[in-house]
Amino acid sequence: MTDTRPVIRLKPKANARAIRHGAPWVFDNEMVTDRRSRAIAPGTVARLEDGDRNPLGTVAVNPTSRIFARMLDRDPEAEIDHAWLSAKLRTALDHRARLYDAPFYRLVHAEADGLPGVVIDRFGDVAAIQPNAAWAEVLFDTLALSVVEVTGVTTVVKNASGRSRALEGLEEGVEVTQGALDGPVPVPMNGATYMADLLGGQKTGLFFDQRPNHAFAAELSRGGRVLDVFSHVGGFALACLAGGATHALSVDGSAPALDLARQGAEAGGMADRFEARQGDAFDTLAALGEAGETFDVVICDPPAFAPNKQALEAGLRAYERIARLAAPLVAPGGYLGLCSCSHAADLDRFRRASTRGIGRAGRAGQLIHTGFAGPDHPQHPALAESGYLKALFYRLTA
Amino acid sequence: MTDTRPVIRLKPKANARAIRHGAPWVFDNEMVTDRRSRAIAPGTVARLEDGDRNPLGTVAVNPTSRIFARMLDRDPEAEIDHAWLSAKLRTALDHRARLYDAPFYRLVHAEADGLPGVVIDRFGDVAAIQPNAAWAEVLFDTLALSVVEVTGVTTVVKNASGRSRALEGLEEGVEVTQGALDGPVPVPMNGATYMADLLGGQKTGLFFDQRPNHAFAAELSRGGRVLDVFSHVGGFALACLAGGATHALSVDGSAPALDLARQGAEAGGMADRFEARQGDAFDTLAALGEAGETFDVVICDPPAFAPNKQALEAGLRAYERIARLAAPLVAPGGYLGLCSCSHAADLDRFRRASTRGIGRAGRAGQLIHTGFAGPDHPQHPALAESGYLKALFYRLTA
Repeated sequence: MTDTRPVIRLKPKANARAIRHGAPWVFDNEMVTDRRSRAIAPGTVARLEDGDRNPLGTVAVNPTSRIFARMLDRDPEAEIDHAWLSAKLRTALDHRARLYDAPFYRLVHAEADGLPGVVIDRFGDVAAIQPNAAWAEVLFDTLALSVVEVTGVTTVVKNASGRSRALEGLEEGVEVTQGALDGPVPVPMNGATYMADLLGGQKTGLFFDQRPNHAFAAELSRGGRVLDVFSHVGGFALACLAGGATHALSVDGSAPALDLARQGAEAGGMADRFEARQGDAFDTLAALGEAGETFDVVICDPPAFAPNKQALEAGLRAYERIARLAAPLVAPGGYLGLCSCSHAADLDRFRRASTRGIGRAGRAGQLIHTGFAGPDHPQHPALAESGYLKALFYRLTA
Repeated sequence: MTDTRPVIRLKPKANARAIRHGAPWVFDNEMVTDRRSRAIAPGTVARLEDGDRNPLGTVAVNPTSRIFARMLDRDPEAEIDHAWLSAKLRTALDHRARLYDAPFYRLVHAEADGLPGVVIDRFGDVAAIQPNAAWAEVLFDTLALSVVEVTGVTTVVKNASGRSRALEGLEEGVEVTQGALDGPVPVPMNGATYMADLLGGQKTGLFFDQRPNHAFAAELSRGGRVLDVFSHVGGFALACLAGGATHALSVDGSAPALDLARQGAEAGGMADRFEARQGDAFDTLAALGEAGETFDVVICDPPAFAPNKQALEAGLRAYERIARLAAPLVAPGGYLGLCSCSHAADLDRFRRASTRGIGRAGRAGQLIHTGFAGPDHPQHPALAESGYLKALFYRLTA
């Protein structure tokens, strides 16, 4: 088998040491590319060698992507087959099964779980697979079979709607490839019930990454009033209500998302304490401020304002503006949670923008907690600086 | 009263804007210093003005410290008295009472809680006060009175043993200034009982800062064997046993600390699962490695290897060495927790050193969690980059 495997090679001066020390990607400018290598079909499994023809491992090749090769296995002879995929999935499952009482989590978080570009979320008996790299698109059927066998799920959703697919030249679309789905899936998390519409795409799906930050906010909001801006399907609001908040107001631009939030509140028997308001987040924050409303806990979890370096400055201004508009709504001694899921805005920059916004609102406080994505979203150590999700919790004492 | 208050002034080119935006410190090189200002007694409350004689606030002055002035109040006329101290303490207490079911926490974390240089830990009916800035030494009796009134504690320990006191030119010593203490205080935390010897100083005291990281480690260790290196009074070991670990081995250089750990294990009814080994951490890690021993969870929580910039490179090498010696002891699929309480080693540097050490041990893995000090250790937003405590949790899959 491996005799027929194409060979790709690093340029003589490329950094083979980084690969040997665990770097999971090889960029196109580090490769010897010629007509032959550029003609390799996206997703082909190949053997990677350094400039001196020493083997470095088994990789997945995509000549149409800036990430020319993704490391699959340090063994240059590894067969990337059903058994190989199942072994990776079992290793990933062991970790989640140890962490969570119920089977609702991110099962595979791409590179960090040894399946580059592959994201799998588990919702009880349903697995939603995002094959966001070409090799996983090619091997999708085998991957789905392994997921069913290893986890016992009965329904598989192929979610091919991610932004990263375009970079790999892959098509978009969401479909049920096995079993059936009728309606949203109830998801238990932090004592609340969330409704996840797995066929509606990102606009109404569910993200597990904020779980520990939801839990932290819930601890702060016992007996208090909560404002959850960019609430999506009720992320912070429902967790806070489950934690004992007396009232939560969810603000979001999406009516379908807020409808799911309301269904979640009903499923959790907390609909009487839940309120939803559809509208632009900035406008709503400003309007609540003009009305003089205050809350014990205010959370803002916006979409990525700085998804890439080009958008960084504008993104940081938007984060500052969010903080400036939200801070006046926090009661004295109350809490303000500000989140960013922007890769480009690192923790220091995001914190400075947030602190500046709070100051411009004439408020002052203390930073009591910095949270990241939960442990079902592991990071590859060589990619850890790109940890995208940050949650800052301030207490506003003045 | 305020007419008799000394006035100190920023140099014309000093950054008054930073102070107006919340910076809590003025360094000596930013001040106009003359014979008069240098003669101000350490701890004197003064009025701070900018170069144009505009008031900036009420500060505590210490001409013998590099931190010449510490901001106490934005109001240049504020009286720093019993009522002022009590108001700060009530604000601090409200936050902790919301967070914790039992009165065991850091009550005041210095600048972030508006009491610069003052650290107060609460152990039920006992408060341990560290007046690590000259102004708090001067006002100690009033401060202690306010603590008793606001919290209801009956015993006050003045702990004047901190490193930062030397920088302020303050004397060392630990004494009970009110009430009485006989023997270690039992401290409930994360389901375990710790024994805190509040008169033995840092070697045998108790730190609350690792509470959330203890809790995270405990979640990982259910049903597993745990190694806790630099265990002190049993920090991670006892939390993991309370969380369901089958066995925990505490390693520390201090026999008195390990004795308290054992007392804690006995108090928690888990002595049969607890083992202590006194010895040098590096030597013990190496010896366990040579003996081929493995654990499901290994935690290393060393003292600050890089307490200042001069010690940074040597400190990072020490962190790398810890990771290299500890990684081989982690069972396949097990977890490695590495902590740093070094100000100088920031998160990125500490993570790189740790990842390098794991790689040099021939192991690979995923970074599953990054933790900091708990929310009873808030940070002043302007000082947030110096967040000293970092805990990295890796899962070693290969």
